Amino acid sequence: VSNMQVAVLGATGMIGQRFIQLLEGHPFFDINGLYASERSDGKRVSQVLKIKDYEFDQETLETEIKQIDVKKIAESCRIAFSGLPSEIARDIEQDLADKGVAVFSNASSHRMRDDVPLLIPEVNPDHLEVIRSQKTFGDGGFIVTNANCSTTGIALPLKALDDAFGLKLVCVSTYQALSGAGYPGVPSLDIIGNVLPYIKSEEEKMEMEILKMLGILEDGRVRFADFDMLANCVRVPVIDGHLESLIMTFVEDPDLDEVASALSEFRADPQHLELPTAPIEPIIVRDEVDRPQPALDAYAGEPERARGMAVTVGRLRKKDMYFKAFALSHNTLRGGAGGSVLNAELAVEKGYLR
Amino acid sequence: VSNMQVAVLGATGMIGQRFIQLLEGHPFFDINGLYASERSDGKRVSQVLKIKDYEFDQETLETEIKQIDVKKIAESCRIAFSGLPSEIARDIEQDLADKGVAVFSNASSHRMRDDVPLLIPEVNPDHLEVIRSQKTFGDGGFIVTNANCSTTGIALPLKALDDAFGLKLVCVSTYQALSGAGYPGVPSLDIIGNVLPYIKSEEEKMEMEILKMLGILEDGRVRFADFDMLANCVRVPVIDGHLESLIMTFVEDPDLDEVASALSEFRADPQHLELPTAPIEPIIVRDEVDRPQPALDAYAGEPERARGMAVTVGRLRKKDMYFKAFALSHNTLRGGAGGSVLNAELAVEKGYLR
Amino acid sequence: VSNMQVAVLGATGMIGQRFIQLLEGHPFFDINGLYASERSDGKRVSQVLKIKDYEFDQETLETEIKQIDVKKIAESCRIAFSGLPSEIARDIEQDLADKGVAVFSNASSHRMRDDVPLLIPEVNPDHLEVIRSQKTFGDGGFIVTNANCSTTGIALPLKALDDAFGLKLVCVSTYQALSGAGYPGVPSLDIIGNVLPYIKSEEEKMEMEILKMLGILEDGRVRFADFDMLANCVRVPVIDGHLESLIMTFVEDPDLDEVASALSEFRADPQHLELPTAPIEPIIVRDEVDRPQPALDAYAGEPERARGMAVTVGRLRKKDMYFKAFALSHNTLRGGAGGSVLNAELAVEKGYLR
Amino acid sequence: VSNMQVAVLGATGMIGQRFIQLLEGHPFFDINGLYASERSDGKRVSQVLKIKDYEFDQETLETEIKQIDVKKIAESCRIAFSGLPSEIARDIEQDLADKGVAVFSNASSHRMRDDVPLLIPEVNPDHLEVIRSQKTFGDGGFIVTNANCSTTGIALPLKALDDAFGLKLVCVSTYQALSGAGYPGVPSLDIIGNVLPYIKSEEEKMEMEILKMLGILEDGRVRFADFDMLANCVRVPVIDGHLESLIMTFVEDPDLDEVASALSEFRADPQHLELPTAPIEPIIVRDEVDRPQPALDAYAGEPERARGMAVTVGRLRKKDMYFKAFALSHNTLRGGAGGSVLNAELAVEKGYLR
Repeated sequence: VSNMQVAVLGATGMIGQRFIQLLEGHPFFDINGLYASERSDGKRVSQVLKIKDYEFDQETLETEIKQIDVKKIAESCRIAFSGLPSEIARDIEQDLADKGVAVFSNASSHRMRDDVPLLIPEVNPDHLEVIRSQKTFGDGGFIVTNANCSTTGIALPLKALDDAFGLKLVCVSTYQALSGAGYPGVPSLDIIGNVLPYIKSEEEKMEMEILKMLGILEDGRVRFADFDMLANCVRVPVIDGHLESLIMTFVEDPDLDEVASALSEFRADPQHLELPTAPIEPIIVRDEVDRPQPALDAYAGEPERARGMAVTVGRLRKKDMYFKAFALSHNTLRGGAGGSVLNAELAVEKGYLR
Repeated sequence: VSNMQVAVLGATGMIGQRFIQLLEGHPFFDINGLYASERSDGKRVSQVLKIKDYEFDQETLETEIKQIDVKKIAESCRIAFSGLPSEIARDIEQDLADKGVAVFSNASSHRMRDDVPLLIPEVNPDHLEVIRSQKTFGDGGFIVTNANCSTTGIALPLKALDDAFGLKLVCVSTYQALSGAGYPGVPSLDIIGNVLPYIKSEEEKMEMEILKMLGILEDGRVRFADFDMLANCVRVPVIDGHLESLIMTFVEDPDLDEVASALSEFRADPQHLELPTAPIEPIIVRDEVDRPQPALDAYAGEPERARGMAVTVGRLRKKDMYFKAFALSHNTLRGGAGGSVLNAELAVEKGYLR
Repeated sequence: VSNMQVAVLGATGMIGQRFIQLLEGHPFFDINGLYASERSDGKRVSQVLKIKDYEFDQETLETEIKQIDVKKIAESCRIAFSGLPSEIARDIEQDLADKGVAVFSNASSHRMRDDVPLLIPEVNPDHLEVIRSQKTFGDGGFIVTNANCSTTGIALPLKALDDAFGLKLVCVSTYQALSGAGYPGVPSLDIIGNVLPYIKSEEEKMEMEILKMLGILEDGRVRFADFDMLANCVRVPVIDGHLESLIMTFVEDPDLDEVASALSEFRADPQHLELPTAPIEPIIVRDEVDRPQPALDAYAGEPERARGMAVTVGRLRKKDMYFKAFALSHNTLRGGAGGSVLNAELAVEKGYLR
Repeated sequence: VSNMQVAVLGATGMIGQRFIQLLEGHPFFDINGLYASERSDGKRVSQVLKIKDYEFDQETLETEIKQIDVKKIAESCRIAFSGLPSEIARDIEQDLADKGVAVFSNASSHRMRDDVPLLIPEVNPDHLEVIRSQKTFGDGGFIVTNANCSTTGIALPLKALDDAFGLKLVCVSTYQALSGAGYPGVPSLDIIGNVLPYIKSEEEKMEMEILKMLGILEDGRVRFADFDMLANCVRVPVIDGHLESLIMTFVEDPDLDEVASALSEFRADPQHLELPTAPIEPIIVRDEVDRPQPALDAYAGEPERARGMAVTVGRLRKKDMYFKAFALSHNTLRGGAGGSVLNAELAVEKGYLR
């Protein structure tokens, strides 16, 4: 069968270009069109390059980016991957869903709607079911969101630990990469030799989103999890890769080996279904005393297509009833475009996109 | 009266040079000699400069550094300020105390001895009393230590909050500056565009030291405080100034204004005694959404002699029973040499150095 | 006598704020009003702070910034210091001159006009005389410009060397700080762990401006100097302080000591007139093998008011007929606002502002 | 036929590990042993990893590093690749040659000997012939050196331009990466937010080496080239990739297109012989206004085995008789281990290793 036709929205931005990267040669999807705001209409990818660690195909580099045209996208594409800024994503994404397009979005606009799943295939694949409540579902249109980049990085290990031991308290402090702020993002004058202890709305997103994702599906709606979740967020001068400090307590009292095993042995739907962008080992546990580090672990994940899709956890320690660890994930791959691509792969395999 | 004669040990290092900076023109103390290891014997300060943000007097720059000679120091100096590496500090500091010298040390070697105070004048001035248990005290010799740089930065706000509301749980994650690792310290290849989630022994020190300092003096010994104290420590590419993320619960349930007031109105012995290196306002509370930052707040503190001696706290937030905040302090001034100089000033004023 | 009333244009920007810094407590000038674009109308200085290494007076922090109003400025101010972006500076500065205001500008718009001096008081104080050709001069209005930041940094040493030995060839390669690009300026994603070998129009400016400034005044016009001047410009991840690599030949063949003396003994009008912002020693020659460095030498210059106004030259070497050196200067002080303030001080002392 | 057995000396260092990387799966060579100083005897590669952008084979990671044993290496290996520090390289390398081993060295110890070629296969392949003068050549032992990293980066374009137009003057200013200083190398405290205008002996090496390499072979010896070659060297906070600013004059007066063509069309022995580590296009000329950049161009070079072996040249400009450009190359691949591997490949193909 031929591949599904997909559109990339926000193709001039950091997340949009990660979508393009991940869709090059994708076994399920073919890029049908690249779209962005009016300002970039007619530019080629080569003129607006944002990603420095990946070389696009020559054909991609020469592809023209067009102004977003909902009608045209609806006519030619079954799926739209959205890397749009939240302020404009809200309406455009809904318009696309209204016209029968399946939207997989990295924007925060619709994340907390109770008929929109905030989806990580390893964490809450069953939540995908809530799209049936969207009034456009019958015509094939719906919206699925992926979580905020800093939420995603800890959602996998927290899911594994919640399943195994029951979470009671999670205190997280982040060390977030610059690419999370998009481009141009953080001025260099503010961050060279400095760190910035403020990222607008980030802590609120982390504290809410994690509870929604670890919540239980009941009667087609998500009942939020109810452990204590506290976040402090900081920007650091790193290009890619969010590091996060974790201090946790559980309902049960496992020993350290049990915690390490619960993490490293964690497998879920994407692994069972062998989704193309799923890492074989979704959570990599490292023993070295000084890992994970952004410079060494941001691109963890195998096979090649899943580079940057694994979460690395290290420095597991126990003190009394508390557990301490660090988690690291790639914020624009696993925590951005990669999350939505994996969501779409799950939707395909689960039959929501027929 | 003439000033006390003091020696600086470890004068070629980062902390040693901060001692020299703070002792230039000091109203109580005169530098009698600069000392370091055999390797630097005969070098002048100008040849081994480590500090980039302070200009030493021309006379200081031309002062010769000599190899440590305990006998000679004991003959000429009442006080020794030690910025020695811990592995050699243990014996030299004890030898000096044995010979009647009052040692104010930044090294960790003697910090946890129960007859050695781990002293911050704003936090536990009464602990100074434990030096009476040191067998050399009768002859004028004793050792007083200041806390680890990352412990010091939060000790002041935690003291203010413990006094006011009773601490139950403190989760701290650090963003520590490079100068904390001394010179040459962290290789640039490891930290450009990266952060390092491991600092040897740092978390253990923070978790123990804070409980000792917030402990109560009973029968000439310190009974440790017993709240839950958890630390995750990370090195970031910042020159000076440790930022620390705090998530806390208290015995009482204050509102945010009460917490802010408890911090900003905090005053203690150094302020009452008007010690030369004491900041007028020991804890500065900032309202801006993105403070404190190392680049802006590391050198907080007035008057001029107390630059870098204030702790800045910002981003106070409350969520349910949890309180969140960030604290920032200068790690080699308040958290290093400045701590010991302030300790010596307190000891002078309290009459321990007659 | 009372101080002259001055306006600062572009008060929300990096250069505008350096103007405010240098005018606080100035012996000749009083800030009468701060001005910027409509967008910032009504904001206070504290809300738009850009400079991290200087603390403004409380009164300054609370001063309101107003939208530029040429008529009002002309009524209340004798001088306008302009830190405006070049694209809007052209008309506003001319309008002010037309209304009798003396404009001292950091913008490039009018620099190459033959009736506008491109002025560095140590280099070409006599060029100030060309303002008599401006048709507004009779009514007290005129425009004086300072040079581009990277040109200024080498103009002083090149002037000293040209006077002494005659320049034949100058090859300069720059290592330019981020503050030279204004705020927000260079995105952090582009410069962390990277350098950028392109700064728009910078090389052209350097190559032309230096020849105009080292030119000779003939019949009220400047005849450009005619040595070979080649520039390659690069942005590096440094906050403040442009470093510049120099490879030069001279008409004469001095030895290294003569070159060092010509630089370190250089004095000019600002020193003779003891202008408030003039450094006592305008060119500081250093012998250390690894100086000048931005982190150590950007703020060179005494007295206090002239901090950042001296140029530091080091690593003087000779090879055959070639001379090699590095020069460093503060790009927004000496190479920005400080240049214009010094120009205005010269104009006052030379009687052009009566 | 089976592959040649090779030893890697200095296997714990930055260059040594680049040798290992390039020799993994090499079509000519098999790693027979990894060697370093006594201090590392018995450590495995995984314990001393220095390179962050390459993943070694699991087998390599587990390989033991042994203390250097000249006798043993001579018994088992035909070739030794040396990434030893210069101070110890001199004797060990000569001892190996004395025992019949062909040494391909990155150390500077023997570079200027007149019977040792300073070899870049694209630049001076015929210089390899001077090894016949080494008294050990008859027994199969000899030493071949590659050039300093910063020399190598410009040697290719300078060769192409010298052949085409005749060099008269070359002024180069470098922007050198941190990996060039080895590990631990430059302390982070010295380079965060700073640049360092001094690299010991670097300028002297550049000025001499380029003239030796562009010299002519006469009677089995190299007659040095005699154009004017001036270098200023600076360390910048970049991990890998030396950028170099070039200002040049030629004997002839080509136009810009001719210069661009001379560079981009340059091919030499490694390309004709299709050596495994040779880039198909040794000099890549870019038209973008802001290239080359370390973050984007350090790893230029195809096929896969030649990643980091191409030199990228950009910003070609002409002003009067002067030509300006920037060149960039990977300092530990093309300018380090890759240079020596390519030298060995050339020696094999030219029949010197039978």
